[in-house]
Amino acid sequence: MARIPGLSIDPASDAPVYRQIADGIRAALDEGRVRPGDRLPPTRALARQLGVNRNTVVAAYDLLAGEGVIRSRTGQGTFLTGGAEPLDPGAVEAGAAAAEEGWSGSFSRAVDGPGVERLMSVYRVAISNRGISFAGSYPAGELLPIDDFRGAIDDVLAERGPEVLAYGPTAGDPGLREALVATMRRNGSTLAADNVVITNGAQQALSLVFRTLLDPGDEVLVEDPTYTGALSVLGSLGARVVGVPADDEGPRPDALAAALERHRPRLMYLQPTFHNPTTRVMPEARRREVLALAARHHCAVVEDDWAADLRFEGEAPPTLHALDGGRHVLYLSTFSKKLMPGLRIGWIAAPFEVARRVVALKQIADCGTSPLLQAALVRFMERGSLDRHLDRIRAAYRERRDAMLRSLGRHLPEGVRFTRPAGGLFLWVTLPGGLDSGELFVAARQRGVLFSRGALFHIDGRGVDTMRMTYASAAPDRIDEGVRVLGELVRERLADAGRGGGERVMESVPVL
Amino acid sequence: MARIPGLSIDPASDAPVYRQIADGIRAALDEGRVRPGDRLPPTRALARQLGVNRNTVVAAYDLLAGEGVIRSRTGQGTFLTGGAEPLDPGAVEAGAAAAEEGWSGSFSRAVDGPGVERLMSVYRVAISNRGISFAGSYPAGELLPIDDFRGAIDDVLAERGPEVLAYGPTAGDPGLREALVATMRRNGSTLAADNVVITNGAQQALSLVFRTLLDPGDEVLVEDPTYTGALSVLGSLGARVVGVPADDEGPRPDALAAALERHRPRLMYLQPTFHNPTTRVMPEARRREVLALAARHHCAVVEDDWAADLRFEGEAPPTLHALDGGRHVLYLSTFSKKLMPGLRIGWIAAPFEVARRVVALKQIADCGTSPLLQAALVRFMERGSLDRHLDRIRAAYRERRDAMLRSLGRHLPEGVRFTRPAGGLFLWVTLPGGLDSGELFVAARQRGVLFSRGALFHIDGRGVDTMRMTYASAAPDRIDEGVRVLGELVRERLADAGRGGGERVMESVPVL
Repeated sequence: MARIPGLSIDPASDAPVYRQIADGIRAALDEGRVRPGDRLPPTRALARQLGVNRNTVVAAYDLLAGEGVIRSRTGQGTFLTGGAEPLDPGAVEAGAAAAEEGWSGSFSRAVDGPGVERLMSVYRVAISNRGISFAGSYPAGELLPIDDFRGAIDDVLAERGPEVLAYGPTAGDPGLREALVATMRRNGSTLAADNVVITNGAQQALSLVFRTLLDPGDEVLVEDPTYTGALSVLGSLGARVVGVPADDEGPRPDALAAALERHRPRLMYLQPTFHNPTTRVMPEARRREVLALAARHHCAVVEDDWAADLRFEGEAPPTLHALDGGRHVLYLSTFSKKLMPGLRIGWIAAPFEVARRVVALKQIADCGTSPLLQAALVRFMERGSLDRHLDRIRAAYRERRDAMLRSLGRHLPEGVRFTRPAGGLFLWVTLPGGLDSGELFVAARQRGVLFSRGALFHIDGRGVDTMRMTYASAAPDRIDEGVRVLGELVRERLADAGRGGGERVMESVPVL
Repeated sequence: MARIPGLSIDPASDAPVYRQIADGIRAALDEGRVRPGDRLPPTRALARQLGVNRNTVVAAYDLLAGEGVIRSRTGQGTFLTGGAEPLDPGAVEAGAAAAEEGWSGSFSRAVDGPGVERLMSVYRVAISNRGISFAGSYPAGELLPIDDFRGAIDDVLAERGPEVLAYGPTAGDPGLREALVATMRRNGSTLAADNVVITNGAQQALSLVFRTLLDPGDEVLVEDPTYTGALSVLGSLGARVVGVPADDEGPRPDALAAALERHRPRLMYLQPTFHNPTTRVMPEARRREVLALAARHHCAVVEDDWAADLRFEGEAPPTLHALDGGRHVLYLSTFSKKLMPGLRIGWIAAPFEVARRVVALKQIADCGTSPLLQAALVRFMERGSLDRHLDRIRAAYRERRDAMLRSLGRHLPEGVRFTRPAGGLFLWVTLPGGLDSGELFVAARQRGVLFSRGALFHIDGRGVDTMRMTYASAAPDRIDEGVRVLGELVRERLADAGRGGGERVMESVPVL
């Protein structure tokens, strides 16, 4: 095939070009414009046609290969397979196929144990931004403060190049740790720089803190639903995950007390503010109840405050870390959502006895986070660029939230419930009449609209009538267009009541 | 104390300023210019005195606090303790002290198990560059191609800012993976981009690949001595490490066969080229023998090729990965030594069944390495900057190796043996007459000269008469000066024969 019919890229889209290409090829397959077995154009040719760098096309093909949508054969080219089934190890190119001999049964329980299915599905992440995406929890790409950050990097390289390009302290840049201490103290926390460890985003913070505290078989309490990335780590460690029923204010104290009594968990994992995915905020009184229960049962609390600084209205309740005096609470947060995911910078604040062990694991995990990016971030903050950026995105996200609320009110039928979060990146929707968001997902995707199925965040696959919709990464007019499509699809399904819930689909997992 | 007597920084030194300050304070303590209990100047005051940024002083204090050399008391200031003993948890400031309640017995086996002592000691890493350092294995700071790299970052940010500051593919930048495939193919390897996973340096590559293959109690064969960072990961995983006796060509085939027979290990960890710390290179025939034995016993081989591209003379034997056709060998390498540690970029090449599991672990470990730094590295390579840099540092390292060899020949007495590596960053020295390099270390440090004790690389603390000396990070005249000091100290000790080996010391562990 010399070209893929109908494939084009939208320079105005906030989706990375390689994702647009991958999505376009997937759409061409879905819509019958290309067929399984067809040979794709060589990367160089397609790059020329689309006017993009060849590496961009390579990235798109690579993404599709990872999903099993395409497959290359040495010396023959790249071919479409039947769809998004997992890669057949016998079908990859000859060299690689030979390489697979003898590996079965060779893997650790971390990758072959009970958590493996969830773990493997993580690899198939393919948040698609073709059309209109309410999936993923990404900050708005077009609002990133690129020039300010480039200036910070340039200055740091010019002034301290050899230092920031060498190994740095394992626990992180001292200036960054001090800046985080100062911020957290303003929010009522008691801590010093020794309590802070810089990590590669909140995901590494979770990974390190769970590995510091958990052995296989240990029990862990979580809100259910909860962040899939936390569940994946827990699965890889062989932890036993217990979901605690919640009401509108967070985990129910009676249920929490019973679970603590029964399971004697080593820790509980909580997102008290703008909980992912439900957007719930735990009021201060509930926070105090939860902390009292945790202390009584000697259960550590991992507070994931990923949405700190993304509140655009109202007053924030104190963090668990502040309320607890930093005694039993291990606090983590990130710059990925409030600034830029590509930095890969997050942090943990923990009692020193925990923090020093986290640092030891960090050292053997990767010898420390890039000193260059940390130093540039410090410079960026010192100049006030972070504060200016936060003002800007909070205003933008409020506008987008309002746009999505208006559009939901306008286009969705009676009975659809949705939250009205005072911050964060998304809202949480519950469908009426037992409608299945999995089936809706497939239909919406064919119309170019994406969201995250609620079931993905549940421990046991419940929540099929729920969905998470990110407002942060689309402009208001696109939001209205996408919600309008969803409204049509929901109305069709309600009109044809009772049909929902039959068909099950597999799709990519939004872990972020 | 308003100032620290004798403390100064050397702008011409290649040591980061914060390390110079920390080293200067440690030296002042060692030499009695300051005493335990003395209050240090406030960071702001010391920064002004030294004419440095306050954060630099904060970093120095932080390093010393991590080593237990100093301690802060809230509202009172920062004080010198008695020395480098581990921090007493009861002695940290009140808030932190309160925070320690109830944590004992709370930790996982990863941080409290058999590997814990080694693991904790890792935190005390404090490669000191005061005076003349032959410790650590750092590339030369003054040779880093800072301007070229800044240009690459600037261009990538200008052209693809939103993309490289967003989340990237978990397995790594497709362009970087392709570039690595191309390089490895030129070296005879069979592989495709799907076989390559980008990691945060070789340390993360080791951590991920070991976690992919090992459960607690699994046996692993290693060369003894070997890289301490690998031993730390194995310790944290609860693996049982078995050292294989070696001759000048690598692990002895008879010993390897016996160990494979007896222990049925899941994997063996090898550095066939410029082995750290012995600098040994395995000839091709031995490589083939080792691979044949591994294949016969279904034992995976982890090939750590950290010094690839750092050969400055002679012909490189084929990698194990190339000889094996990528079937049983998991290959890893890094840009930390040949380019810049601060990038934190390394990679694994592995059979796809392994690579996809590594990617899953990578996703839950940290959601991927910074796309910005990866994209900048690709740009840097595309422009030929890496090749130019390699030409430059290979010439410089050869010159420095020759300088160290000359100085060793000139200043060290008969009976001291040392290797003559054709590449890499350091050489390996064996002392005569049972001299203890630990005792020598303490004496040398007081004279401002550092090296790495050989015992640190041994599984069981043997090798007390060995030392690793890095030539790469000091200029030739400094090398001669440092070796001259070592020569004097060794001669003194040989003259006073029989005294060595009595005193044991603790010092920082060079894990890199």
